[in-house]
Amino acid sequence: MKALVYNGAYDVSVQDVPDPRIEAPTDAVVRITTTNICGSDLHMYEGRTDVEQGKVLGHENMGIVEAVGDAIGRIKVGDRVSLPFNIACGTCGNCIKGLTGFCLRANPGSAGAAYGYASMGPYDGGQAEYLRVPWADYNALTLPPGTEHELDYTMLSDVFPTGWHGVELAKMQPGETIVIYGAGPVGLMAAHSALIKGAARVFVVDQQPDRLKLAEQIGAVPIDRRAGDAVEQVTELTDGGADRGVDAVGYQAHGPDGTEQPEIVLNELVAAVKPTGGIGVVGVYVPQDPNAEGELAKQGKLAFDYGTFFFKGQSMGTGQCNTKQYNAGLRDLITEGKANPSFLVSHELPLANAAEGYDQFDRRVDGWTKVVLHP
Amino acid sequence: MKALVYNGAYDVSVQDVPDPRIEAPTDAVVRITTTNICGSDLHMYEGRTDVEQGKVLGHENMGIVEAVGDAIGRIKVGDRVSLPFNIACGTCGNCIKGLTGFCLRANPGSAGAAYGYASMGPYDGGQAEYLRVPWADYNALTLPPGTEHELDYTMLSDVFPTGWHGVELAKMQPGETIVIYGAGPVGLMAAHSALIKGAARVFVVDQQPDRLKLAEQIGAVPIDRRAGDAVEQVTELTDGGADRGVDAVGYQAHGPDGTEQPEIVLNELVAAVKPTGGIGVVGVYVPQDPNAEGELAKQGKLAFDYGTFFFKGQSMGTGQCNTKQYNAGLRDLITEGKANPSFLVSHELPLANAAEGYDQFDRRVDGWTKVVLHP
Amino acid sequence: MKALVYNGAYDVSVQDVPDPRIEAPTDAVVRITTTNICGSDLHMYEGRTDVEQGKVLGHENMGIVEAVGDAIGRIKVGDRVSLPFNIACGTCGNCIKGLTGFCLRANPGSAGAAYGYASMGPYDGGQAEYLRVPWADYNALTLPPGTEHELDYTMLSDVFPTGWHGVELAKMQPGETIVIYGAGPVGLMAAHSALIKGAARVFVVDQQPDRLKLAEQIGAVPIDRRAGDAVEQVTELTDGGADRGVDAVGYQAHGPDGTEQPEIVLNELVAAVKPTGGIGVVGVYVPQDPNAEGELAKQGKLAFDYGTFFFKGQSMGTGQCNTKQYNAGLRDLITEGKANPSFLVSHELPLANAAEGYDQFDRRVDGWTKVVLHP
Amino acid sequence: MKALVYNGAYDVSVQDVPDPRIEAPTDAVVRITTTNICGSDLHMYEGRTDVEQGKVLGHENMGIVEAVGDAIGRIKVGDRVSLPFNIACGTCGNCIKGLTGFCLRANPGSAGAAYGYASMGPYDGGQAEYLRVPWADYNALTLPPGTEHELDYTMLSDVFPTGWHGVELAKMQPGETIVIYGAGPVGLMAAHSALIKGAARVFVVDQQPDRLKLAEQIGAVPIDRRAGDAVEQVTELTDGGADRGVDAVGYQAHGPDGTEQPEIVLNELVAAVKPTGGIGVVGVYVPQDPNAEGELAKQGKLAFDYGTFFFKGQSMGTGQCNTKQYNAGLRDLITEGKANPSFLVSHELPLANAAEGYDQFDRRVDGWTKVVLHP
Repeated sequence: MKALVYNGAYDVSVQDVPDPRIEAPTDAVVRITTTNICGSDLHMYEGRTDVEQGKVLGHENMGIVEAVGDAIGRIKVGDRVSLPFNIACGTCGNCIKGLTGFCLRANPGSAGAAYGYASMGPYDGGQAEYLRVPWADYNALTLPPGTEHELDYTMLSDVFPTGWHGVELAKMQPGETIVIYGAGPVGLMAAHSALIKGAARVFVVDQQPDRLKLAEQIGAVPIDRRAGDAVEQVTELTDGGADRGVDAVGYQAHGPDGTEQPEIVLNELVAAVKPTGGIGVVGVYVPQDPNAEGELAKQGKLAFDYGTFFFKGQSMGTGQCNTKQYNAGLRDLITEGKANPSFLVSHELPLANAAEGYDQFDRRVDGWTKVVLHP
Repeated sequence: MKALVYNGAYDVSVQDVPDPRIEAPTDAVVRITTTNICGSDLHMYEGRTDVEQGKVLGHENMGIVEAVGDAIGRIKVGDRVSLPFNIACGTCGNCIKGLTGFCLRANPGSAGAAYGYASMGPYDGGQAEYLRVPWADYNALTLPPGTEHELDYTMLSDVFPTGWHGVELAKMQPGETIVIYGAGPVGLMAAHSALIKGAARVFVVDQQPDRLKLAEQIGAVPIDRRAGDAVEQVTELTDGGADRGVDAVGYQAHGPDGTEQPEIVLNELVAAVKPTGGIGVVGVYVPQDPNAEGELAKQGKLAFDYGTFFFKGQSMGTGQCNTKQYNAGLRDLITEGKANPSFLVSHELPLANAAEGYDQFDRRVDGWTKVVLHP
Repeated sequence: MKALVYNGAYDVSVQDVPDPRIEAPTDAVVRITTTNICGSDLHMYEGRTDVEQGKVLGHENMGIVEAVGDAIGRIKVGDRVSLPFNIACGTCGNCIKGLTGFCLRANPGSAGAAYGYASMGPYDGGQAEYLRVPWADYNALTLPPGTEHELDYTMLSDVFPTGWHGVELAKMQPGETIVIYGAGPVGLMAAHSALIKGAARVFVVDQQPDRLKLAEQIGAVPIDRRAGDAVEQVTELTDGGADRGVDAVGYQAHGPDGTEQPEIVLNELVAAVKPTGGIGVVGVYVPQDPNAEGELAKQGKLAFDYGTFFFKGQSMGTGQCNTKQYNAGLRDLITEGKANPSFLVSHELPLANAAEGYDQFDRRVDGWTKVVLHP
Repeated sequence: MKALVYNGAYDVSVQDVPDPRIEAPTDAVVRITTTNICGSDLHMYEGRTDVEQGKVLGHENMGIVEAVGDAIGRIKVGDRVSLPFNIACGTCGNCIKGLTGFCLRANPGSAGAAYGYASMGPYDGGQAEYLRVPWADYNALTLPPGTEHELDYTMLSDVFPTGWHGVELAKMQPGETIVIYGAGPVGLMAAHSALIKGAARVFVVDQQPDRLKLAEQIGAVPIDRRAGDAVEQVTELTDGGADRGVDAVGYQAHGPDGTEQPEIVLNELVAAVKPTGGIGVVGVYVPQDPNAEGELAKQGKLAFDYGTFFFKGQSMGTGQCNTKQYNAGLRDLITEGKANPSFLVSHELPLANAAEGYDQFDRRVDGWTKVVLHP
């Protein structure tokens, strides 16, 4: 089959690879109808991870069940399904608590596995014609048959639940205000989520005009960092600070001067959120970053404004989204027309053009918000 | 001052009564700008309570602070405020847990007090020019100055938080379905609340076309009991039952044949909600109802379908709304245009015409959904 | 193999039946080391259910994994395991929310399945030498190897988690008081649970002196119904009512006069628990009870004191325990010596003597609190 | 009256000061029977704050109500009361959510006030014969009359609820393991709390043998940092990490080499707690620390191991305890003999000897765990 393969830094290509097949009785094989390029794929694309050459990338996958193993009983051939980016066994100590982002069996020695991703287990990704899905009865989310809402449902594998998770980690309640750093796909999904969950006001901080415009279109208040200090803007609009905050940026954050400052978003959130407020962090931070500039950053450490964080009595939740906790509810919101995450999609490409998609998305070419691939 | 006084069953009139005054250092006096007739006022109006003659009615009050006692420090003369229908001391064991509907000090010997209501303490109501507000620093919710959103904010004293409370008691999560019995003011507010909180679908059951139409206008699915069994309709639309349910009717429920059947709504909810679902009950039930027809009902008992309730593993939360838990957030949702409960209001009358309002509202004259009085 | 078979009302016997075997790749077969007679087995024993003749009874099972299907990867032959009485698939909409007592796949058309039980699916029980365990990777709880704590761990399959569930449903917080109706195995486990969870005081209501004595031995306050009205006793000791309550009796409740009064425990709980308090119901109630005396009871209905329940703003949670939500934590409490539910065990019998155990336990012979069988 | 006054670094003395009196109708004056020296008093004693000379210290206060203002209605003269160290108004936006440690009115311009403490408002402390208590109906917790449990109840004003808060912030559930850094009064109270709340195992990390011995006596597992790396010890005992962690040390943490390393406890907690675990921080961190050695520390920043914190998906709660959320329940646990925090008390001194108590406690003289003063 055809698949998008990682060859090295800034080098991916669509190649012929062996077809995936049922390897265990709990497996299914899914024919991919839609798969997206994720911002976190760019970490690998840019060579900042140790992902192996030859890996098929892609963890935002949906499609039609093509084949199932002997132990499969819930899903069946022909079902339209969304696959959470996390691969989870469904039976370990973490999975039974719903912590499917931290499965203890899918990637032994670590907590958490994913398709086509560095350090997340030996699983190929779904930017391909077919995908092997382990523990498929557990992992696959069934969707209404047909092709309706394809571009909405494709956001169920990662960015919509991840944005939602950020708002959950921030413990936002209806009627509250929330400030979200980053107007990329995850930040915009966090804003969409907060509005669905009854936020009184949602602020989205970024410096890219096209993304801020999207934030405004969905009902959020755009905060343009180029127009002045973001913390001051938020503090003024909220009479002292937002109730909650979300970091949808991660360690590759940049200061107003354009330099990489991995701690800047977290420290601004501590300042922009009021005392007792909660902060949810879904932008990625890494335990080591050997290529980073600062000494602390190399060790995965940050000069975190901890004294203020404590003095304000704030709380913080972090980490990969446990996709299965949210995706069924979000699917139903889409089906009923209450959520429409497809507003994110800027480009639909055939799989054959995937390399172009990586290139444009990575260079943050204006208007390339989210690239969707159709094998 | 002028005030609406209870004279006896089906007999209320606007009369001259003594002006309220500061009686304790923690009191305030509020000049009423808007006050509503509540469905629960009709229990008194119809003579089904032991409320004393001469009582000034009215527990849905808002206005401008006119005077404050020596111990008042948070609010000040001139503030625009909404007064929760519950009167709460703010310092007892229940109030400090947020259970302000069950204050242990405001109505000694009972749990819970209110303005102008039978058995809820010696407090006059606010269908009057002025109102004495006990523990005013605690009870009064400050509103943006001016007159904007007056008809929205006036719903903060009771029906909006009460509808919201029903949805909370049902433990509804975003993405779920919920069925609400009763399309009166509280039921419609529950529907509005569920939609704000991210329900996937909201069903509202009633038999009055004007009310069902309002439900539909705000985005709910109307279920007309005249068109067939409500449980069957909901079960079919939800593939086996709604996730959650709300009773916004109470003990004066009627069967399809028009007879009073106090248990019918609860039993239908048990049937219409799926296993493990939650049910929130904010329609009023009473410990005794001497004038009821059935023997059980006289004792406040119901022939409750308990076996099914248990077998389905459902849960149920009940009781008066703890208004202060919600009203600040709901105020902010109104201020930001995310909630607009004024859609309820069908009639605005001067206080002088209050008796007419009682009469029309009690006879459920078509289109009389909610009556607002301006002293 | 040998197994305890249901032949008809008051007639069970140990017989030769076919050995269970792996029927699906997700199955395991477990060699039973310990299995208990449950109070709910007596409903079948007394002929009050429609359980089929020839059914092997027993849903409180533990033992050693003897064989596993091809899809099993988490547990392995030789593991010592406890089996939750509920059989759950681990992948349906309820299981992924942790609602394993209401699995939608294990007993199609109903919500919830169990071993060896009427209306709970086609599964034989474990009062036998061997047991087939469906979805064994999901259902089996692994225990420390060896034989230590066998009589404690055997309570993990049902009564300990069920008692714990009652306290959870009542929403008890540390420092609160709780009243538990019923000093049978589940009631005593609820008392043990409440004390482990930091209750300030635990009251246990019953009329059997041997059981009340056990309650006192574990640190609860026994309330003897023969010594006077239980509600009055609790109200006096708690200055107006306990914070929380648990029903560990169910529909076969009896009044002080010895007659079956299915609503008496619930109504006493409503009276004995204070306003805003929570009530957890784990005693079983049934949707129909054709052999009951009263007309309401036949239909599974109760004359429930609903008006008071509502007026007090109480809440209620019900239903079968979702065993997997608790059993790992309870296992660890046993392992660390913080819980010791084996205090319940009054008799250990070989499987061959199981019929005698049923007889004595059913007749509530003094001192027969809990019977444990060793095949 | 006599009171312990701050004169400057390492200089406190008992002096005559004016008697406190009722200044507002919501005030009470309490005659102090017992008041404790807190570890956080030492920050002031050592000159590391800007507390003003002449301030009466002491925020762990209990006694008998001596006088009340006109607006007081709940408490009365003669009541025995415990005073939370936080002073809270009871009516602001934070207080009504139970966030009494972050009252918006008691110390305008900041969030949170306290008795006798730097930067926490103009309130004198209670290491004195009498204390003025603002908003006394709200703040005072009534105790059973008499003198029983005096040394237990005196822990209700701060260290017992603060230790409990740490465990709450860590979101510990019964059956889990928890590691607590610091065996000072707050750490020991956290350990006591975790055991009362049903922890399976509690680890307490410290290097002082007398404190570790106390930890062991109450049922915790002592982890001696002098015996080897604490993280390794905990990881080994828990098979990969504790479920939860508490920081009861704060910014004056020291490394094994004796140097002040403000980030060491937090980073060790991140390492010692397993993925998805929660961390509660009640040891104090400060927004600025001009006298600190490192450049980051001067700015209140820490080299926090954020990458690992995120990768493990941990969460963290911080800040001053909202004492009123817990103290009534903890009082009842003491009254019923389920909690006995007085095990902490090493020394009881008359107020006249308070300066000696400061000196010994500050020098961490062996065996001086907790000093209680009786005016």
